[in-house]
Amino acid sequence: MTRYIAMVALIVAGLVMIAATPATENDFALVGATVIDGTGAKPIKNGVILIRDGRIAAVGASGSVVVPAGIRTVDSAGKYVIPGLMDANVHLFLDAEPENVLKYEGHYEDLIIEAAQIALKNGVTTVFDTWGPRAALVNARNQINSGAAVGSRIYLAGNIIGFTGPLSSDFFPDAQKVFSENVVNRIDKYWEQGVGGELLWMTPDEVRAKVRAYIENGNLDFIKYGSSGHVNEQFIAFSLETQRAIVEEAHRAGITAQAHSTSVESLKMEIEAGVDIMQHCDVTGPEPIPAATLKVIIDRKLPCSAMVVTNKQLDWTKSHNFRPGYSDESKTRDLNDRNLIKMGATLLLTTDAGLFGPDSASSPLLGPYLKDVPDLPTRLQDADYLWLQAVSERGLSPMDALQAATRNIAVAYGKAKEIGTLEPGKRADLVVLNADPLEDPRNYRNIQLVVKDGIAIDRDKLPIKRYLSE
Amino acid sequence: MTRYIAMVALIVAGLVMIAATPATENDFALVGATVIDGTGAKPIKNGVILIRDGRIAAVGASGSVVVPAGIRTVDSAGKYVIPGLMDANVHLFLDAEPENVLKYEGHYEDLIIEAAQIALKNGVTTVFDTWGPRAALVNARNQINSGAAVGSRIYLAGNIIGFTGPLSSDFFPDAQKVFSENVVNRIDKYWEQGVGGELLWMTPDEVRAKVRAYIENGNLDFIKYGSSGHVNEQFIAFSLETQRAIVEEAHRAGITAQAHSTSVESLKMEIEAGVDIMQHCDVTGPEPIPAATLKVIIDRKLPCSAMVVTNKQLDWTKSHNFRPGYSDESKTRDLNDRNLIKMGATLLLTTDAGLFGPDSASSPLLGPYLKDVPDLPTRLQDADYLWLQAVSERGLSPMDALQAATRNIAVAYGKAKEIGTLEPGKRADLVVLNADPLEDPRNYRNIQLVVKDGIAIDRDKLPIKRYLSE
Amino acid sequence: MTRYIAMVALIVAGLVMIAATPATENDFALVGATVIDGTGAKPIKNGVILIRDGRIAAVGASGSVVVPAGIRTVDSAGKYVIPGLMDANVHLFLDAEPENVLKYEGHYEDLIIEAAQIALKNGVTTVFDTWGPRAALVNARNQINSGAAVGSRIYLAGNIIGFTGPLSSDFFPDAQKVFSENVVNRIDKYWEQGVGGELLWMTPDEVRAKVRAYIENGNLDFIKYGSSGHVNEQFIAFSLETQRAIVEEAHRAGITAQAHSTSVESLKMEIEAGVDIMQHCDVTGPEPIPAATLKVIIDRKLPCSAMVVTNKQLDWTKSHNFRPGYSDESKTRDLNDRNLIKMGATLLLTTDAGLFGPDSASSPLLGPYLKDVPDLPTRLQDADYLWLQAVSERGLSPMDALQAATRNIAVAYGKAKEIGTLEPGKRADLVVLNADPLEDPRNYRNIQLVVKDGIAIDRDKLPIKRYLSE
Amino acid sequence: MTRYIAMVALIVAGLVMIAATPATENDFALVGATVIDGTGAKPIKNGVILIRDGRIAAVGASGSVVVPAGIRTVDSAGKYVIPGLMDANVHLFLDAEPENVLKYEGHYEDLIIEAAQIALKNGVTTVFDTWGPRAALVNARNQINSGAAVGSRIYLAGNIIGFTGPLSSDFFPDAQKVFSENVVNRIDKYWEQGVGGELLWMTPDEVRAKVRAYIENGNLDFIKYGSSGHVNEQFIAFSLETQRAIVEEAHRAGITAQAHSTSVESLKMEIEAGVDIMQHCDVTGPEPIPAATLKVIIDRKLPCSAMVVTNKQLDWTKSHNFRPGYSDESKTRDLNDRNLIKMGATLLLTTDAGLFGPDSASSPLLGPYLKDVPDLPTRLQDADYLWLQAVSERGLSPMDALQAATRNIAVAYGKAKEIGTLEPGKRADLVVLNADPLEDPRNYRNIQLVVKDGIAIDRDKLPIKRYLSE
Repeated sequence: MTRYIAMVALIVAGLVMIAATPATENDFALVGATVIDGTGAKPIKNGVILIRDGRIAAVGASGSVVVPAGIRTVDSAGKYVIPGLMDANVHLFLDAEPENVLKYEGHYEDLIIEAAQIALKNGVTTVFDTWGPRAALVNARNQINSGAAVGSRIYLAGNIIGFTGPLSSDFFPDAQKVFSENVVNRIDKYWEQGVGGELLWMTPDEVRAKVRAYIENGNLDFIKYGSSGHVNEQFIAFSLETQRAIVEEAHRAGITAQAHSTSVESLKMEIEAGVDIMQHCDVTGPEPIPAATLKVIIDRKLPCSAMVVTNKQLDWTKSHNFRPGYSDESKTRDLNDRNLIKMGATLLLTTDAGLFGPDSASSPLLGPYLKDVPDLPTRLQDADYLWLQAVSERGLSPMDALQAATRNIAVAYGKAKEIGTLEPGKRADLVVLNADPLEDPRNYRNIQLVVKDGIAIDRDKLPIKRYLSE
Repeated sequence: MTRYIAMVALIVAGLVMIAATPATENDFALVGATVIDGTGAKPIKNGVILIRDGRIAAVGASGSVVVPAGIRTVDSAGKYVIPGLMDANVHLFLDAEPENVLKYEGHYEDLIIEAAQIALKNGVTTVFDTWGPRAALVNARNQINSGAAVGSRIYLAGNIIGFTGPLSSDFFPDAQKVFSENVVNRIDKYWEQGVGGELLWMTPDEVRAKVRAYIENGNLDFIKYGSSGHVNEQFIAFSLETQRAIVEEAHRAGITAQAHSTSVESLKMEIEAGVDIMQHCDVTGPEPIPAATLKVIIDRKLPCSAMVVTNKQLDWTKSHNFRPGYSDESKTRDLNDRNLIKMGATLLLTTDAGLFGPDSASSPLLGPYLKDVPDLPTRLQDADYLWLQAVSERGLSPMDALQAATRNIAVAYGKAKEIGTLEPGKRADLVVLNADPLEDPRNYRNIQLVVKDGIAIDRDKLPIKRYLSE
Repeated sequence: MTRYIAMVALIVAGLVMIAATPATENDFALVGATVIDGTGAKPIKNGVILIRDGRIAAVGASGSVVVPAGIRTVDSAGKYVIPGLMDANVHLFLDAEPENVLKYEGHYEDLIIEAAQIALKNGVTTVFDTWGPRAALVNARNQINSGAAVGSRIYLAGNIIGFTGPLSSDFFPDAQKVFSENVVNRIDKYWEQGVGGELLWMTPDEVRAKVRAYIENGNLDFIKYGSSGHVNEQFIAFSLETQRAIVEEAHRAGITAQAHSTSVESLKMEIEAGVDIMQHCDVTGPEPIPAATLKVIIDRKLPCSAMVVTNKQLDWTKSHNFRPGYSDESKTRDLNDRNLIKMGATLLLTTDAGLFGPDSASSPLLGPYLKDVPDLPTRLQDADYLWLQAVSERGLSPMDALQAATRNIAVAYGKAKEIGTLEPGKRADLVVLNADPLEDPRNYRNIQLVVKDGIAIDRDKLPIKRYLSE
Repeated sequence: MTRYIAMVALIVAGLVMIAATPATENDFALVGATVIDGTGAKPIKNGVILIRDGRIAAVGASGSVVVPAGIRTVDSAGKYVIPGLMDANVHLFLDAEPENVLKYEGHYEDLIIEAAQIALKNGVTTVFDTWGPRAALVNARNQINSGAAVGSRIYLAGNIIGFTGPLSSDFFPDAQKVFSENVVNRIDKYWEQGVGGELLWMTPDEVRAKVRAYIENGNLDFIKYGSSGHVNEQFIAFSLETQRAIVEEAHRAGITAQAHSTSVESLKMEIEAGVDIMQHCDVTGPEPIPAATLKVIIDRKLPCSAMVVTNKQLDWTKSHNFRPGYSDESKTRDLNDRNLIKMGATLLLTTDAGLFGPDSASSPLLGPYLKDVPDLPTRLQDADYLWLQAVSERGLSPMDALQAATRNIAVAYGKAKEIGTLEPGKRADLVVLNADPLEDPRNYRNIQLVVKDGIAIDRDKLPIKRYLSE
C-alpha cells in the first residue's frame, strides 16, 4: 500500500462503514446515485454499485443489490455514476520540443506520470498513449500498475512505426541546426526504437522482421504505424503489402494495430490492411472521405478515432489560416465528422492531448498555436471535456457520446473484459458526477469523485509533482 | 529552308555530286563505311547508306545497294556509321535554380534549344525530356520540328505528375524565404500545369480526370508520374490504384507512361501499375532491388532506364558522403546495375542530363556537386559518352550498349517505326565515327559527322546562342 | 525638343498667346494666382509669375510685373502657386529585393525613371536619391537632364559609404542561400562601387582614399555614409576620425556630405564630423535624442531630415510590434519629432520613399509591411503628402512645412541658387494647386499643373512605362 | 581542511619531514632545483624555496636560505621551478552551445570547476575568466578560494559589457528558431546581467550608470567591454566617450578594465579610452595594426594579450578558408604578432581556451572547427603549452615568454603583490618541471609537481568530476 493510496483514504473517510465478515478496508458501495453503466442501457435511478477488491462486485437498482455487512456505503443520492472515461489517443509526453527532450533527458517518466495524473484528476481513468518514448512510458506504466505511482492506467504503443524521432525532419528539422549530431541521434533513437523512418526503404518482409522484434522486446500494449507521413501528410509511408505485414505481426502477437493516416488513400490502405482502429480517420487533408470509404467504415463498424472540435475552435480555424491549407483542411475534417456521425460510425473519443509547459507558449513551433487557438483540443487538462462538447454540437446522442468515451474504446482495443462499462467483474473505474452528463455535456466537468481500481482518488493532490503543468 | 539548314549546306558542300533524275539537293549516299545498323546484326563492312528525302532509302553492303545517278556520294571508307544516339531521360532545362527561372522567365525555350543543340552536336539526335516547363518545351520542340531551329529531336512529358514546381519544397524550399509568393506561385504553376503536388491528396478517379485533361491539352509525347516523392524519396506518392489510373489514361491516349521511383516498393508498384519505362529503376535508396522484382523486370523485358556511372565517379561517391546516406545509396545503385546487366535486363541509356550555367558552380545548391564530382554524369556535354563508358566498365557487351543507346529507347517509347535503327524507311538520323565504337566506347566521342533527318549538321556552329553553356 | 516635351504642349495649348518680339514658344506667364514663393514671405494675392527660357524672369503682385507682348499668359485666378516640391531622401530603386535586382538587371535605369516620373506627377520636381545603384542612377539623371526622358530632377549619392549590397547581410542575408555566389557578388558590387562594407575595417586614411576615388569617378552630386550600421542599427560604423575624413573629402570636392545614423551616439558623431545633413536624425532606436544633442542641432541650425509619420501610422506602429522593439522605437521617434518641432529645428521633408511592385505585397521581407501598415510613409505615390500632413499634425506651422519641403532642402544641399523658391533667376519649377496648402495640408494633393524648368508636365501620361507602379 | 586538500597530502607524504617549532604540516622547502623566479633574473642553480603558510617565505641559492628545523624538505635536484602559470584570457564555460546551456542549467559552476581543475592540472595556477555566466563563476571562484573545491585560482569579469547572451544573435542566432522565447531570454539574461547589448543604444552617462551598478553588485575582479561587436567584428560597439566612461567606472572601483576589439579602429579607441589590457590586440580582421598604433602600444608598454598560434595551426588556416575572410585574417594576425614581438611589446599569454564536450565535435557550429583544426589553440588541455611554443616559433626569447605567462599578467591585472613571481611574501604558486623550459618550450609539458597556495596538487585526481572533458 503506497503513500498515494493512503492519502486517498482521507476522502473515503466520510463514508458510512457497515460491518461485514470478509470486507477489506477498501471495499465500499455507492448508494443512491443514477448509474449510467456504459452498456447503452437506460440509466438506473437510485442505483447501487458494490465494489470489492478493486472490482465491481454488483451493480443494479437499490433493492436488487445486497450490500454485505461491514462494507462501507457512500451516500450518492443525487449524483450520477459513469464508467471511468478513456481517451483513445493521448501523448503523455507530447511537448517533446527540443528544449524539453534535452532538459528532461534521463527522467521522461516523471513528465509522463505528471500527465497521467492530470488525466486521472479529470476523470480519465485509462489512456492509450499512441506515440512517445517507449522505455519511459513502460517505466511509468509499470510504476502506476504496481502502485508505486498514482495515475491514469496507461496502455502504450511507443514509437509510431516508420516515424523518425522528435529532433528529425518529421518533427523539428531546425533542431539539427542547433544541436550536435550526437545529441540528435541519441534522442531520436530513444524514440525510434528500431522502427523509425529507415523502414520506409525496406521490403515488406524486412519491415515485418523489424516489427516482430519491436513487439517482442518492446513490452507494448498495441502498435501504431504510419500509413502516411507525419510532416509529409499527403505521402504514403508504406505499400499495402507492407501495411498488411505490420498488422499481421500485431495480431500474431495478440495485440491490436492502428495506423496514422492523413489522406483519403492512406486511410483506404490501412483499412485494406486490416487495422483495428483508425487514428484521426477524419483527417484527410483538403479532400473529404469518399462515399465508398465511408460505406466500408460503417458496414464493418470500424472503430473511428475522430478529432472532433468545438464550434468555437472550428470557427477560429476557418478564419485563421494558421499554415497554408489549414482552414480548408479544418473544413474538410468537419465535413468528415458530420458524415461519420450522421451515418452512425463507431466513434472513439480521441484528443492527441498532452501537457504543454509554461515556456511553450513562447516557443517558435507551438507558441502561436498555444497562444491563439480557442478551445485548444490538445491540452490534457480539458481535452476530453471539449471533445464531449464537440460531438454534442455535431448531433451525436448523449448516450453514444458516453459510449465513445468508454465502452467503444475498450472494445476497440480488446480490453472490454476489464474496463469500459460498469458491469460485475470489471475493474472498478468510475466517475461520480454532480449533475447529469446526458443532460448537458458540460456536466462531465462537474466531478465529485474519481475511482480507479476501486480506490477513490485524492484529486486535489494531483499532480504530485509539476514539471510542465502549471 | 531555314538559315540553319542553309548553314549546314557548307559541310555537305564537299561531297561529290552525282547527277540523277529525281534527286533533290539533300539526297546523298554514304559509301564505304562500316555500318552498325542498331538491329543487333553484324556490322556491314564497306557498306552503303542511301538517304533520300530525309529518310533511309536503302542500306547494305556495297554492291547490294544501287545509288541512283545524280545522287551525291560521300566517301566514308574507314568510318563507322551508327544510328543517331538517343537519351531516354534528359532535362533540357535542368538548371532550374531560382536565379535561372527568374532571369530567363519568358523565354525558357531559348535555353531548351541551346541544350538540344548541345545534344545534337554530340551525336544525340533524339532526346526524351522527362521533366521541364511544358509550354516552353512544346515551343522548342515545334521550332525544331518545323525547321525554325536546329536541335536534337525532342519528345517531352512536361511536368512529372505529382511534383510541385522548382521553387517549392520539392526542389528549393529556401526560395520561399527570398521570393514573393506571387513569383513563387507563378513560376511553380508554369511547371506544374495542373498536375502538381495537390494530386497526392486526391482519389484515383480525381487524379484520372486531372491527368486526362493534362494529356488532352498538353501537346505531350508521353507522360511521367512520381511513384515516389522527389525530396521525400522514401515515401510513396500515389496508391497503386491511382498509379493504374494514370497509366491507363496514357494508354487510352495512345502514349507511353513512365514513373519516377526511388525505393524498392515504389518500383514494384509502378511495375504493377503497368508503366512502359521505369526511370532510374536502379535508384532504390540504401535497399537493393529484391530478387523477385528483378525477376519480373527480366521476365517481362521491362525497359529499364539505369543511371550507370563510371568507376571514377562511383569511387568518389563511395568515399565522399555528399549528403547523409549518399555513399550507401551509390553502392546500392551500383549493385543494382551489376545485377541488371548480369541478368540481361533491357537497358536504356539515361542520364538526367542538362546544361549548367557558369554561375551554378558557385550556387548554394549545385555548387559543391558541380565543382567536386568527377565524371559528372548529368552534364549534357558528355553525359552520354560517360554512360556508354560506364556500362562497358560494368560488362555490358558493346552491341548491347549501342542498342541501349538507340533501338531500345525507340522501342520502349513506341517510336521504333521512325527511329532507332538504320533501316529503310526510317528517319535518316545517324552518326559517322572516325573509329569503331564496338572496339572502345571512347570512340563514340570521335565524331566525324552527325546527320539528322538526312541533313548533315554543322556541329561547329552549335549552340547558335549560348545562355548557359560556355 | 523631345517627344515628351512635345506631348505636354497639349496642356499649354489652351493658354492665350500674346505676341512679343523675343518670346520663345515655351515662355509664359501665370496670372492671377496666389503666389507662395517659398521664401517665407507673405503670399502674394493676384500674383504674376513670368517664365522665360525655363527660368523665373519675374514674380510679384499684378501690376508690379510687366508681361512682355507675345508672351502667353495663363489665367490662374483662384489657384495657388508654390515652388516645386522636393524630397530630401528618396530611393528611386527602393524595392531592391532579390527577385527585382535579378529580374531587372541590365536596365535598372528604366525603373529609376519610372519612379522619377511618379514623383514629378505628384508635384515633386526635385528628388535627392540617397541610396541606389550609382551607374543606373547617373544614367537616369543624365537622360532626364538632357531631355531624353521626363522625370523629377535627380541628385544622387550612389551607395551609402560603408554599406554592403542588396543581397548581403546588410539587406537580405537569405539571398545567399538561394543565389549563386557569382550572382550575389556581381549584384552587390554594382551597388557598392568600391565603398562597401570593407571600409569598416580600414584606417581613416585608407577610407579617405577610397572615398576620394569614389567621388572622382562617381559622377555624384553629394555623398552619404553610414555613421551606424544598417541591419546592425545600434553599432557604430566608423570612428570619429574616419567620419571626419569622409566629410572632408566631400567638402574638398565641393559637394555636401550626409550620414545615416540610427542611434544617439552615431548621431552625435556625425554632427561632430561636420555633416551638412543628418538623415533621419529622429531615428535613434529606443533612446531619445539627449538634450545636449538637441541643443547643438538647434543652435547650429543643422538641417534635419526627419521621418515624421501621420498619427494614423503612428497609432498602428504603437500597437503592432512589427519586429522586436519596433513599437518602442516608433514612440521614441515621435518624441524626437515633437522635440525638434517644438524647439524650431530646421526640418527637411524626407520620406525614404520609392516604388513597390505588385509582387512585393506577397514578399517574405516586405509583404507584411506593405499589406498592413496604414498611411505607409515610403510609397512614393503619396509619401510627400503624408509627410506634410504629419508635420501639420505635430504642430509645425504651414509656412514652415512648405519651406521644409522646398527652400530648406535646396539650402541644405547647396542648390539654393537654382531651386527652392519662386525668385527671379531660378529654375521655373512650380506647382499650381486648386486650393490653399497653407489652409489644409491635404490641398497639396489637389494639383492643377506641375511645371519643371518652365515646361508644363502632362501628368496623365506619367509614368510613361510601368514596371513596378500599378 | 577539505577532502581535496586531504587528498593531496598523499603526494606530499613522500617528503622528508624535519622537526621544527612553529612549522605547520604544510610548510616545506624545495631544495636543489634550478629556480626561474619570473622576475627576469638569471636562474638560480641549486636553489631553495621555503614555503610557509601557503606563501613563499624565502627563495635563493642554497646556503643563502635557512630552512628552519622541522620544515620538510623536498629534494628537487635536477628539476626546474617556475612561478605557477597564468592565462590572461580563458572562458571556463566556453562551450556554451544551446544544448549545453540548457542541459547544465542550474549547475554551471560544476563545469566551471571542472575547467579550473583541468587548468590547474596543467600548471596554470591562476586564470582570468574574461567572459562567462557571472553568478556561476562567482560561485565556483568562492568554492575554490574557500577550499571547498580544488582548482585554478579564478579572477572573473562576468559578461563582456555590451554583448548579448549565448542564445542571441551575438553567438547562436539559430537557437531562436528552436528554443522558446522564455528559455532564450532566461539564459541570455543570466549571461548579460544587466550589461548586455541594450547598452549600445545608450548615452555615455547611461552606460556609466549601468556599469557602476554591475560592478557594485557583481562581485567582480575586473571588467571587460566590447570595443567592437562579437559577430559584427568590423563594427564599433561604443563611442569613445562611452568607452572612457566604462574605464573610469572600473578605475573608480579599483579594478582593471579591458576591452574586446577586432579592428584597427576599435583597438585604437580602447587605447584612447585607457584600458589596462587589450584582449586579442592582434586580431584586427584583414587590416594590420597601423604603425602609429603599434608605436603607442610599445611606448606606453600596454599589456597586449596576443592570440599567437603555432606554425602548424597557422599553415592550416592559411590554406583552409574556414569562413569567408578567415585565411586573410589569420595572415594579418600573424603579421601583427611578428610586429609586436619584434618591437618588444609587453605580451600576455592568452588563449580564449575552455573545455569542449564530446558531443561538440559533431555540433553544427563547432564541429568542423574542433574536428579539423590542428594544434587547436582554445582547448584548455594544452592551450597554454601551444601558446608558449607558438611565441618561441615567432622568436620571443624564452625568458620573455615565461614572463608573458606569469609576471606580465599579474602586473597587468594589478595582482603583482600576490602572484606572478617567486618572491618572498607572495602566494606559493609554482610548477616543478622535469626539464628546462628555457631550453625548449615543450618542457613546460613535463610537469613533476604543481603547488598552489603552498599545497601540492594531486594532479592525477583532476578533474574530480567530468562533464565535458574526456
